[in-house]
Amino acid sequence: MQRVLSCELPKHVGEQVSIAGWVHRRRELKSVSFLILRDRAGQAQVVMPPAAELPGEETVVKVTGRVLANSIAPGGVEIVEPVVEVLSGPVESLPFEVFRPSLSPSLPSQLDHAPLSLRHPSRRSALRLSGELTKAFRHALERKDFTEIHTPKIVESATEAGATVFGLDYFGRKAFLAQSPQFYKQLMVGVFERVYEVGPVFRAESHDTTRHLAEYTSLDAEMGFIEDHRDVMGVLRDVVAEMVGAVSEIVVPAEIPAIHFAGALEIAGADPGEPDLAPADERAVGAWALKEHSSEFVYVTGYPMVKRPFYTHPDPAKPGYSNGFDLLFRGMELVTGGQRLHRYEDYVAALAARGEPLEPVRSYVESFRYGYPPHGGFAIGLERFAARLTGASNVREVTAFPRDLHRLAP
Amino acid sequence: MQRVLSCELPKHVGEQVSIAGWVHRRRELKSVSFLILRDRAGQAQVVMPPAAELPGEETVVKVTGRVLANSIAPGGVEIVEPVVEVLSGPVESLPFEVFRPSLSPSLPSQLDHAPLSLRHPSRRSALRLSGELTKAFRHALERKDFTEIHTPKIVESATEAGATVFGLDYFGRKAFLAQSPQFYKQLMVGVFERVYEVGPVFRAESHDTTRHLAEYTSLDAEMGFIEDHRDVMGVLRDVVAEMVGAVSEIVVPAEIPAIHFAGALEIAGADPGEPDLAPADERAVGAWALKEHSSEFVYVTGYPMVKRPFYTHPDPAKPGYSNGFDLLFRGMELVTGGQRLHRYEDYVAALAARGEPLEPVRSYVESFRYGYPPHGGFAIGLERFAARLTGASNVREVTAFPRDLHRLAP
Repeated sequence: MQRVLSCELPKHVGEQVSIAGWVHRRRELKSVSFLILRDRAGQAQVVMPPAAELPGEETVVKVTGRVLANSIAPGGVEIVEPVVEVLSGPVESLPFEVFRPSLSPSLPSQLDHAPLSLRHPSRRSALRLSGELTKAFRHALERKDFTEIHTPKIVESATEAGATVFGLDYFGRKAFLAQSPQFYKQLMVGVFERVYEVGPVFRAESHDTTRHLAEYTSLDAEMGFIEDHRDVMGVLRDVVAEMVGAVSEIVVPAEIPAIHFAGALEIAGADPGEPDLAPADERAVGAWALKEHSSEFVYVTGYPMVKRPFYTHPDPAKPGYSNGFDLLFRGMELVTGGQRLHRYEDYVAALAARGEPLEPVRSYVESFRYGYPPHGGFAIGLERFAARLTGASNVREVTAFPRDLHRLAP
Repeated sequence: MQRVLSCELPKHVGEQVSIAGWVHRRRELKSVSFLILRDRAGQAQVVMPPAAELPGEETVVKVTGRVLANSIAPGGVEIVEPVVEVLSGPVESLPFEVFRPSLSPSLPSQLDHAPLSLRHPSRRSALRLSGELTKAFRHALERKDFTEIHTPKIVESATEAGATVFGLDYFGRKAFLAQSPQFYKQLMVGVFERVYEVGPVFRAESHDTTRHLAEYTSLDAEMGFIEDHRDVMGVLRDVVAEMVGAVSEIVVPAEIPAIHFAGALEIAGADPGEPDLAPADERAVGAWALKEHSSEFVYVTGYPMVKRPFYTHPDPAKPGYSNGFDLLFRGMELVTGGQRLHRYEDYVAALAARGEPLEPVRSYVESFRYGYPPHGGFAIGLERFAARLTGASNVREVTAFPRDLHRLAP
């Protein structure tokens, strides 16, 4: 008999059907027992005979029976006179119960048993939300004529000097895992003008925090023929609005307020010589934007060149400042972006001025001899973005199988 | 002045506009010169004064001028009285010309200069096609209620015994790059029932062939609550039909013909004891399907267990044969898939029977104690698929930045 999903049962009242899924919970009362079955669409109640032996929680079963309307059952229907067939090996004991409103084990223990804990509605919905965010990211950019690309994750040299990379043996040569598709997405601007990529990036982060992962999903975009970074900020606004709108009621203003880095320091009451914003400074800027512009989002523009990578385009009008920006959400950095250098000679000069060697990035820099338009882009860390939107206090709560300093399995 | 794309020019005849892009080609005639400008939408002709100095090919320019209808110009319009502004550094010399109908350098030389050669229309369109294939793959599966997942590429152990893996130092521990998301997508069937992933996979292939890459994009799907592999073949048929239909006129039959492995050997006139199909055998089966079923696609089912990995589900009716299949297109393997084991005890027994150790895959196998439905899936190598559809003789022709035994840059 063809399987019916739990959500379709109300259409089959009075009929004989088969449903299939996991035993979410057993409920044994004096006169009757229930199996609550969970499938990808929801849950269904199965009425079992009083003396029936009930398969344990998480056992996979197929249940064939008659659909009965019952206003007090979940979904308004239940299955009666069931025949239960066990599809999985019998599940006899579990390290914890998935049917509780919240998962009882500590986060590390949940992660140790990820294949089980991810079945909990809270964890499932966070991953579904990540999927929706990714879909919205792609749709927004495809409507703006961006082309999807796939760029290599095994690379010859580290993207950004000083950042921490994983090394590997590549057929006897030293290679690295890409920390970002930065170079490649810029090169692809020369081919398609507007490109995006959804893919893993790798950071050998020795930070053991609630925000850092050794591997995460980066949503990257890059676009050519811009005037400056403000064109990128305009596109990013639309992308973020579509992403946020797909999963929440949070409002992204039609124009996100922007403040220059120097002004941000002033609002925060920080030393005007500071080269970066401390977390408390970001919170102060977030509070300012909410008060002055009724916006939970705010751009900080013009970060000092000294804190930005060598490919960053300087602000032609303000020496020492860049055309790089951050997007803050509720007082925390959500997205980083900016305008990049696009002329070969500017790359050579920038590296020389910083005292950074040309050799490790020669093939990238040499490519700019081929003619590139003014361009810029941004990168969104999917897991951090999802954590901020769901209010998760640890990025691991919204990551299926996180990788960090201590964790390599499952 | 707001930029207009080349394809929009016919709407602006008589108006003053700005266009921007690359100098695709210079044409200097006696009485007049032309610049052919290339942007992401196409090309546009710019009429230059006779004595004008023309910027070199691939220079990025912004051209402001008046749009004139001219039936013999490409697109029926041209730009006259132009003011040309150079946006990139001047491009003085190039290793080869991009405007020729076909690229003259050898493939290795093209790959050495990928940021330039990828601008050639033939290479651009192959990458665009890959993007369209990926989009169609996702759309087909989303309509069937599959959820997108992202699984880790840094893993604790090699997925498939005997396969070649890249090792890396992971905070002082030995780790590997995932050869496939196989284990993780199976585990996620326990969460979402139906999942897919688009992501890189890594093979330390010592094969130096036109078909092998050390890194490629894998389109993976996995689904639960199947009867057997035939349910997977039904979904794969619809996915392939949508992918192929998005980029070509090739017809995928409503039901793809299927032949059992033993029958395939017979058609090929091969020794019935052979455990696998040789390339010539695959070609023979492809020819048979075209002749007998007028189909360019054919499934071969029931590959011998000895040639399939340990997680493969055996055929309950035919000892020694599996519920694994290949999809052939024009006599070559295009997709591999099958039903997997879903019971813990079957995994333990399968490993023991093969003499393969449990330890490297213990965390994966132990997960099957938590209750899994009968399930299966498939994996499509994006680059090979695109090469087959475009008729490219080498998978590197449809890969932006290929990685192989000899190539790690750009």
